[in-house]
Formats: sequence, C-alpha cells, structure tokens
Amino acid sequence: MTVRQLPLPDLVRHCRRLGVSGVGLWREPVRKYGTEAAARLVRDAGLTVTSLCRGGFFAASRDPAPVLADNRAAVDEAAALGTDTLVLVSGGLPPGSKDLAAARARISDGLAALVPYAADRGVRLAVEPLHPMYAADRCAVSTLDQALALAAPHPAGRVGVVVDTYHVWWDDRAPAAAVRAAASGRLHAFQLADWTTPLPAGVLTGRGQLGDGVIDLRGWHTLVDAAGYTGPVEVELFNDTLWSRDGADVLTETVTRYLTHAAPRP
Amino acid sequence: MTVRQLPLPDLVRHCRRLGVSGVGLWREPVRKYGTEAAARLVRDAGLTVTSLCRGGFFAASRDPAPVLADNRAAVDEAAALGTDTLVLVSGGLPPGSKDLAAARARISDGLAALVPYAADRGVRLAVEPLHPMYAADRCAVSTLDQALALAAPHPAGRVGVVVDTYHVWWDDRAPAAAVRAAASGRLHAFQLADWTTPLPAGVLTGRGQLGDGVIDLRGWHTLVDAAGYTGPVEVELFNDTLWSRDGADVLTETVTRYLTHAAPRP
Repeated sequence: MTVRQLPLPDLVRHCRRLGVSGVGLWREPVRKYGTEAAARLVRDAGLTVTSLCRGGFFAASRDPAPVLADNRAAVDEAAALGTDTLVLVSGGLPPGSKDLAAARARISDGLAALVPYAADRGVRLAVEPLHPMYAADRCAVSTLDQALALAAPHPAGRVGVVVDTYHVWWDDRAPAAAVRAAASGRLHAFQLADWTTPLPAGVLTGRGQLGDGVIDLRGWHTLVDAAGYTGPVEVELFNDTLWSRDGADVLTETVTRYLTHAAPRP
Repeated sequence: MTVRQLPLPDLVRHCRRLGVSGVGLWREPVRKYGTEAAARLVRDAGLTVTSLCRGGFFAASRDPAPVLADNRAAVDEAAALGTDTLVLVSGGLPPGSKDLAAARARISDGLAALVPYAADRGVRLAVEPLHPMYAADRCAVSTLDQALALAAPHPAGRVGVVVDTYHVWWDDRAPAAAVRAAASGRLHAFQLADWTTPLPAGVLTGRGQLGDGVIDLRGWHTLVDAAGYTGPVEVELFNDTLWSRDGADVLTETVTRYLTHAAPRP
C-alpha cells in the first residue's frame, strides 16, 4: 500500500532490485490482478507474501453472515498467496449505533466463527488495533491490550495481533503489551509508519514516511526484537504525497529510511 | 468556547436568559476583556465561573521556568474570576523530540511545582487527558488512567482530572476510571462534546454538537452522577460550523441538545 501506484509486476521487480525479500499485499489489487497470477508472480520472483490485508469488519454490521463469507474469501486468498497471516481490521460502529461494547462483542463473535476455517487452511488471524481516532468508523479495537484480549481465547498460532507503530505509539501500555505479544507468539505482524502533524482531513492518508515524525521507530523495533519477534517488518504508509510520486523512488527512499531510522543498530 | 463568537456581555446575558447558571471561560477572551471586569460581569449576573481553561503545557518546553510563570498567572486569573478549577492541557512533544516518557515526566514535575501556589489561592488543578490524536502536538496525557496517575501523588482537593467525552469515549478503561475519579473527589470537571466523522484537517475544530455523533452522552452523564459527581456539566465544542452561526442561536440549540441527548432521565 505504501507504493500502491506500482502495478504488481513492477512492485515485485523493484523489491528484488532493493533486496526486499517479502511484501505485504492488499486484497483489492490482488483480486484485480488475479489471485493465482499474483501468487505465481511473487513466488517466481523468490519473494514471500508477508501478510494479506485485510479481513475483519465484524463490528460494522449487525448481520454476521455476509461478513463471515467475505472473511472466508479473504482466508482463501491468503492461502492461495502462500501467506500465513491475514490482517483483520475489525470495523467501527454500524449506522446509528452508540454502543461500543456491543461492537466489540460482535468482533469477538466474528473472530470465533472464523478461526476454525482459517486454521484448516493454515492461515493465522492477526487482529490489528487501529488508532482511537478510527474507533467510530473503522475499528472499535483501539489498543493492543484490547487486541490481545480478543486473541486470548484462541491458540497463539491461530489468533494474534498486529503492532503498527502509527496506531499504538501514543499508548503507555503498548510497549509492555507488545513484549507480551512477541514473547507469547502472538505478534503476527509488525508494521512501521511515522506520526506527522497536522493530520489531513479524514485522517486516513497522513501517515508519515519513516523519520519524518515523532515515533521512536528504532525503539519499537528493538523492543519487539528483544522480546523474541523474528517475523517480517512491514512499512505501511497511507500518504497522498508519497502516492503522487514515482513508485520506484518511494520504494528506494523507504528502504533507506528504514535503515536510517528504524533498523536496530548492530 | 462553544460560542466564542459571543462577546462576554452577550454570553452572560444569553446564559441568564436560558437558565444556564455557570459558564466555563478561556483565558484569552477573559484577558482581552480584563480579568477583574470579567469577574464582575459574571458575578453581577448571578452566574458562576465553572472553570478556567487553560494552564499546563509542561511537556512542550524543556525550560520549566517560563511555563511555571505562565501557569501561576493562570492560577491568579482563576482566583480572580472566583472559580476553583483551572483546567490543565499538558502539552505535547518539544520540537525534535521522540521521547514521550520524558514529556510525561515533565508534566509530573511541572504539576508538582505548581500545586503549592495553586493551593494557597484556593484553585484546584484539573488534568485533562486529550484524545490520543493530540499526543504529539497538544497533550501527552492521552487517557484518564494517565491523568489519574499524575494526580495521585497530590490530595484530591488539589489535583484532579477532567472527563471530556470527546477525548475519552473510545477507551474501554475510561468508564471505570471516571467512576474512580468521581468517587474519590478527583473529578473536577465534566465536559460534553460528541464525536462526528469525517474529522476536519488539523482535527481541532470538528467536535460534534451533542447528539450529532456516536457518543453515548447520557450514559456518561449517568455514570459520573451515580459515582457521586455533583459539579457542573460543561459543553465544550470546537466547531467551525457552530462558530460561523449566530451565537445566541447556538447557545439555545446547545441547551436543547443537552436536555435531549445528555441529561439523565429522571
């Protein structure tokens, strides 16, 4: 998504050129390209698909059936791509609702309904807490503690969490929760984005390039590494300015920024 | 601030007309009008000043001396206005900093330095947690739990917290924290604003009129009342649309909205 302006074949080619060994994909461009074709493209280039984004949205609808069907399709797509991790963004309040607790209960129920299907296909479900500014309209799971509580009833290999620095950096409880997640095998994805201000209207497309903001990215990276995380590190930027630039340049810059601002010092 | 388009004399007159018995004031318009003159204006109308907003900003500067001086001035202004409550917005990160923990430590230190001065003048300090989307640039205190932890070393009559529904509504720990605050005499101010989306650029002036958003305002009101809160209820909306309208109309509408959407049912 950081370089969504790049068609999949270009993305794969530039990842190879830069020594990036894996890539997180989103469902929409994958389906447009064809799931099997995308899987072959990535595999033939010697890359791995680190995660598929996204299932979820359990909270936003009072009817669980179509939501479950769409999530099963997402699991199938993840399995076809050869990734073991489906990221879940849980959804916000349905129209007219003021009941956050009920929304969170629907997430718990939706997750429970999806777990057996995902487990049968070798796909782990990774619950992503989103920044509290998205609680109403995108994700009623706002903290890492909440995400871990949702995962807790299920085995660690089945349901875990995503730590995206953009969403959790402000939370004084998040570092300890990230350590708990990593140490217990529930940290299924680790994503980097920086926090810059002012936020743009709608607050969706203002994630900062690594190093442009206030987040101690290296501190977070070092923290999860020390706690036992050995999975991939993804950079997920939604940023109008980055999207308007040449995708290959943005990818190159992002690798440099990662090394300069986030990679733990040896 | 909800009707900042109204000059102070008009504000006071319309509050009387509507049966609003108290008003929370901000420092800038008060100083422009003259602190003593504003105090007399409100007093002569039989109104109380519910709180003065705002001191704080301890975290945003590495030099505590001018910050303390400004906060003492704010305490003096609160005392002159006859309000017992000074709201503190604690400040974000200083330029170039990525160290949230250090910012929070400066808040704790700044508070400790201010408490004796405020206590001597009969002014309580009310730490306001702001929504996490302001953590970088306005307030590193992002949850009610953090605000209560900052208050804890001091007597409840000296340092307490503000619950503003806009800032805490998303937090699953906030209801219990609000009950603790009210039951222990640390809930020094209770403010209402609704959460509407999409957020405007800069995310400062999009607070929703009561009833326009997703917050269970009556639920929050009932919660703090049941926990023992007997103080004033303030409505604090930063909203470009409301500011562009006739102030008297907005004030009238706000009273109606309060009664319809927030006032506990008898």
